[in-house]
Amino acid sequence: MAVPQPPVLGVGMVGYAFMGAAHSHAWRTAGRFFDLPLAPELTALCGRDAVSASAAAARLGWGSVETDWKALVARDDIALVDICSPGDTHADIAIAALAAGKHVLCEKPLANTVAEARAMAEAADRAAERGVRSMVGFSYRRVPALALARRLVEQGRLGEIRHVRAAYLQDWIVAPEFPLVWRLRREVAGSGALGDIGAHIVDLAQYLTGDRLTGVCAMTETFIRERPLPDSDGAVGTVTVDDTALFLGRFTGGAVASFEATRFAAGRKNSLRIELNGSRGSLAFDLEAMNELQFYDGTDDPDIAGFRRILVTEPSHPYVGAWWPPGHLLGYEHTFTHQAVDLVNGIGAGTDPAPSFADGLQVQLVLDAVERSAASDGAWHAV
Amino acid sequence: MAVPQPPVLGVGMVGYAFMGAAHSHAWRTAGRFFDLPLAPELTALCGRDAVSASAAAARLGWGSVETDWKALVARDDIALVDICSPGDTHADIAIAALAAGKHVLCEKPLANTVAEARAMAEAADRAAERGVRSMVGFSYRRVPALALARRLVEQGRLGEIRHVRAAYLQDWIVAPEFPLVWRLRREVAGSGALGDIGAHIVDLAQYLTGDRLTGVCAMTETFIRERPLPDSDGAVGTVTVDDTALFLGRFTGGAVASFEATRFAAGRKNSLRIELNGSRGSLAFDLEAMNELQFYDGTDDPDIAGFRRILVTEPSHPYVGAWWPPGHLLGYEHTFTHQAVDLVNGIGAGTDPAPSFADGLQVQLVLDAVERSAASDGAWHAV
Amino acid sequence: MAVPQPPVLGVGMVGYAFMGAAHSHAWRTAGRFFDLPLAPELTALCGRDAVSASAAAARLGWGSVETDWKALVARDDIALVDICSPGDTHADIAIAALAAGKHVLCEKPLANTVAEARAMAEAADRAAERGVRSMVGFSYRRVPALALARRLVEQGRLGEIRHVRAAYLQDWIVAPEFPLVWRLRREVAGSGALGDIGAHIVDLAQYLTGDRLTGVCAMTETFIRERPLPDSDGAVGTVTVDDTALFLGRFTGGAVASFEATRFAAGRKNSLRIELNGSRGSLAFDLEAMNELQFYDGTDDPDIAGFRRILVTEPSHPYVGAWWPPGHLLGYEHTFTHQAVDLVNGIGAGTDPAPSFADGLQVQLVLDAVERSAASDGAWHAV
Amino acid sequence: MAVPQPPVLGVGMVGYAFMGAAHSHAWRTAGRFFDLPLAPELTALCGRDAVSASAAAARLGWGSVETDWKALVARDDIALVDICSPGDTHADIAIAALAAGKHVLCEKPLANTVAEARAMAEAADRAAERGVRSMVGFSYRRVPALALARRLVEQGRLGEIRHVRAAYLQDWIVAPEFPLVWRLRREVAGSGALGDIGAHIVDLAQYLTGDRLTGVCAMTETFIRERPLPDSDGAVGTVTVDDTALFLGRFTGGAVASFEATRFAAGRKNSLRIELNGSRGSLAFDLEAMNELQFYDGTDDPDIAGFRRILVTEPSHPYVGAWWPPGHLLGYEHTFTHQAVDLVNGIGAGTDPAPSFADGLQVQLVLDAVERSAASDGAWHAV
Repeated sequence: MAVPQPPVLGVGMVGYAFMGAAHSHAWRTAGRFFDLPLAPELTALCGRDAVSASAAAARLGWGSVETDWKALVARDDIALVDICSPGDTHADIAIAALAAGKHVLCEKPLANTVAEARAMAEAADRAAERGVRSMVGFSYRRVPALALARRLVEQGRLGEIRHVRAAYLQDWIVAPEFPLVWRLRREVAGSGALGDIGAHIVDLAQYLTGDRLTGVCAMTETFIRERPLPDSDGAVGTVTVDDTALFLGRFTGGAVASFEATRFAAGRKNSLRIELNGSRGSLAFDLEAMNELQFYDGTDDPDIAGFRRILVTEPSHPYVGAWWPPGHLLGYEHTFTHQAVDLVNGIGAGTDPAPSFADGLQVQLVLDAVERSAASDGAWHAV
Repeated sequence: MAVPQPPVLGVGMVGYAFMGAAHSHAWRTAGRFFDLPLAPELTALCGRDAVSASAAAARLGWGSVETDWKALVARDDIALVDICSPGDTHADIAIAALAAGKHVLCEKPLANTVAEARAMAEAADRAAERGVRSMVGFSYRRVPALALARRLVEQGRLGEIRHVRAAYLQDWIVAPEFPLVWRLRREVAGSGALGDIGAHIVDLAQYLTGDRLTGVCAMTETFIRERPLPDSDGAVGTVTVDDTALFLGRFTGGAVASFEATRFAAGRKNSLRIELNGSRGSLAFDLEAMNELQFYDGTDDPDIAGFRRILVTEPSHPYVGAWWPPGHLLGYEHTFTHQAVDLVNGIGAGTDPAPSFADGLQVQLVLDAVERSAASDGAWHAV
Repeated sequence: MAVPQPPVLGVGMVGYAFMGAAHSHAWRTAGRFFDLPLAPELTALCGRDAVSASAAAARLGWGSVETDWKALVARDDIALVDICSPGDTHADIAIAALAAGKHVLCEKPLANTVAEARAMAEAADRAAERGVRSMVGFSYRRVPALALARRLVEQGRLGEIRHVRAAYLQDWIVAPEFPLVWRLRREVAGSGALGDIGAHIVDLAQYLTGDRLTGVCAMTETFIRERPLPDSDGAVGTVTVDDTALFLGRFTGGAVASFEATRFAAGRKNSLRIELNGSRGSLAFDLEAMNELQFYDGTDDPDIAGFRRILVTEPSHPYVGAWWPPGHLLGYEHTFTHQAVDLVNGIGAGTDPAPSFADGLQVQLVLDAVERSAASDGAWHAV
Repeated sequence: MAVPQPPVLGVGMVGYAFMGAAHSHAWRTAGRFFDLPLAPELTALCGRDAVSASAAAARLGWGSVETDWKALVARDDIALVDICSPGDTHADIAIAALAAGKHVLCEKPLANTVAEARAMAEAADRAAERGVRSMVGFSYRRVPALALARRLVEQGRLGEIRHVRAAYLQDWIVAPEFPLVWRLRREVAGSGALGDIGAHIVDLAQYLTGDRLTGVCAMTETFIRERPLPDSDGAVGTVTVDDTALFLGRFTGGAVASFEATRFAAGRKNSLRIELNGSRGSLAFDLEAMNELQFYDGTDDPDIAGFRRILVTEPSHPYVGAWWPPGHLLGYEHTFTHQAVDLVNGIGAGTDPAPSFADGLQVQLVLDAVERSAASDGAWHAV
């Protein structure tokens, strides 16, 4: 009574913090709900500290541990390298893994600099010619409501898009006594709210519209410039990243846009909001109600026109059919499972999944234009 | 570098449909996010058809298959029996498993009749004396927002509760052409909307208030009395269960209540709504926005009083600390993971977890009073 | 350059409290925004206390004062009597005014007893034969969103109606120290929440469905049975009306319904909620967001189906064209202006406006059945 | 039994379109609900066309008609001139009226140019020394929810304000076939969305924060550059104003801000949204739900923290006590009534009401900086 199983896809993951936990869950879960051409196996977890990495592997369900990513990349039983380590490590690992013929999933932002991102995108292009796949982890594209939004735009239900209005609002550093963690230091994090959460809304805006930003006018601010050093006795250090970034932009398709990323919006815990207004209709979304999509159909009878709250839990909605009956909500980690599914399907089908490293580079170019514009008093900088 | 792992808890699951998939996910996931005293192992899945059961076991991650629940109950490597089969099978399996010293998790409703439920509750009491634990699967108690609601009631933040207003609204059989599935036949399903979803709101109302219903005035209706038989060529059969049940009730604590369960609320996919009004404040919840709890604090300065939308994703909120940062949503299946966690913690600690089989019996008694009242033109029937 | 004006319609109003202020505003305003066949004139206000009545007349804009309603009814310059005094005075005044050939607008509830209501309905029928018009003041029918709801039902957009779910929730007597005002005494107010606010949802449910209630199962409760007497030094009196009334019902068209009226829903200030579920769609409304109507169209493409939030401020929406551009909200008192408009239009056109006194009687009959059912433990009582 | 009435305040109004109707309602209504030191009288309406003006006067309730504003300003029985005519007429009328010792209420925007606005502000300053009062009609300051928002900011409940996020979204010219009305022609309207609705959010942002904008980076766009001429046979003309204006700004208090005004947001009928995030809390408002204010108190117990939906209908809320019981909504025109009340109270008390002409000038300066920045590719321009 043996049930035929798909061939194994050995996964090696670098890093095991917040993203590592989310990715591990995805690898454990994807094949349990979706029919996959390959069965992901949690083959090895890689972390520099052997004790911590072993504990993480045991907790998260990984079969073995490596303490050097080069050893991980070299293993024959690993076909896919999943990079969840900080941004300054992405380029080296990804380029080496691709060169070794491993498929690569790389967390966003693709890199801390445009130069690194460009090198990675070139490496991905070369690897694709040899059938090696790569993907950057803009996981919010896999929120069913946002995948549905893209579908509605593709169907022409919005007509020509006039406005994109995007904000990613959090509040975890409102308190001045919050310490100077690594995310508040430019040398490690690259930037602040801009690269961490601003990157998501830039990617989503380009994904949803199908257009690219051509340039921006930007402003950044650091409200609290000194914070206590972690585990120090009252000593303080300088915050070297932005607390918030605001920018206006224009899209290739003619739309204008506003963006805002902040960690100082008291009461907004994880509010990624995006609204599109077109000549025929509008869409609105908030990640704090991630199973809902608001849609206005401008062609409706005016008597009954209005924003519909679509509960994106129908079998026909993207990704949803694999889960529960209508009205049963999905959560944050489902986006990572969907990401794993799309990547494994791409590998199985021999096609390049999106978002590509080139998409990641494009986001990096936008962030770079934002920083340049902010540094020159908001004047327009082309992407 | 071996990491010490908790002892294994062998789980055997009967049934592998909708609930089986949810429970399997819970057993696979609980120990990955929560520190458990025992490590659940998906030891064996039981289903009457060997081929289907094997396929399900492979997909859901179970180590072996049984085709007879008695064989499952007899296995030494199984310490917990998880009953996900239809309601008419619950009593036999649960009573045998408890007698064999297996902990039991039984899906709701506990049974199709009061007599069966009573026998199960008595068996659970006897087993508890021997350290054998049991729990009925009212999983919505494990929605963090509802667990928080219970906490707020316990803290006295609502004062004396005056009103309970509960409805469970779905719409999956609005179309007359929807076939006569087993859930619409009394001999299999016991009842219709009443037992399937009405049971949830009865349990939640009693859980949240900490009180019990003393009696009800009820009305039921079957809107569409004939439906096409499944896989038949136009033949029709009679619907023998309620399409909707409405009832009013009184609680031991003095509150009055209204309940409604229906599968005919067009556009309401899975809207379990419950509102409590007390002398000091109010709470409101809707499962279609399950990460939110609305709370009105009647002691607030009137200038700023209003229902707060609490996003129940803070580390201090029940169950939430094990998952993601604030603002990252949980979904439907998390409730089953939390249920598994609470049961395993109860087993580990040697304490009886809630809701007990006695709680399940109490719900059954309420449903029985509802049917008796509806059969006598709505006259009051004590529970 | 004289601009031709419509003939004057002399109005005499009895009572000048809350309702008197709202009606005065309506009479002052109706002709300023709507084209009316007759120009309402605030001819005389009637109140027993000459000093208070004169002050009210000056403030509210009435041209003269009477202290005896019989004198008001006898005046030649008064063509319409507007009854805003307490319920126990309605029958005498209305019947006399109709007999005198005056059109009558009577505040709800039509009367405190079925017998009075019946006598009034008969008087209205007789008067109608002589071209004398009457209307009972169920002003919420004139909320544009609810008038639109009725239109959508009439258009068949909901199909067969299965469910009516209505609640009118307030919280102004939650505090035990709130005094024993006249509304809490049966001899004056007739009943408590039932007649005051329950009457509104009964009328609306019948108006929106176009059907009548055939019977009810009911429960009432008085949570706080003794309250301080107003202006007394600690003395208390007995509350002799219901604090809340809950009832289930059935409609002539086959729908089932639940109703709840309460003054103990902490945080709900004036939340009149009504939801209809039909075979093709659903509607939902809350008076606390009175410019919005939620509509679910079950015939929509499932990908984009969802409750639409219709902002009922379009020119095509009922009553709205006379006011402001789209998106500009209307408030509570607009319903009274619309009521005046409909009545004056009926008088001008020589047609009977709705809701008629017969409609008011029907509501009274339902309230009576509710009280009878509640007095007999919830057993079904036909209307 | 004569009731003492306050002395009469003769009002003369110039213009009688949309704003004229709203102001007329306010003058008719203010004294009916509020205790005023002076009784506004609708003395004379002024319009260039005698026939139209007479018809408007009859409909709106004005006692006489003038066809030349200079004659209006010269009348002894007029103590207050209310300017509701287009922006290019404001300066002449206001300056003459103030010189003649008449109090002036002037619709926004104060003028079409900074030069005119400055002259008006200077005239108002001079007049104030002689006890003559003036006010610019930023009526949204009189939405109770926004007046409450200002109160909460003044009480320090938000702490230091970090973010202002304001948008005014409409959709009335989305269709390309919408004609080239005067509002789309720069020579008449001054600007497009910027001056018409952008002015409101600039004023509100400064009012709510109590701070002023120091500079902006801006972008404007005209999506549809040619439109049919009204009443022409297919001829088209050029749109010479902005369809949308977006800008970023900084406040004197250190906050950063984003603003957006557009007439192309399909489905947003009159959505003026403003959100403030501070170090201690946040506020959010949407004019499409104008009776509600969302407030997040960052000092709340984290278990129950969340945005409260304050229904701004309590007696303690600004302006509300004069109207209806809690939970009864106010509408658009109430803001004009409140504006009239505040102005009459200022006149009666001998104090200068806000917003002053100087406030109107400050808004004009901001709009000017926006246009200058937009013309120079978004570079920062100081106000």
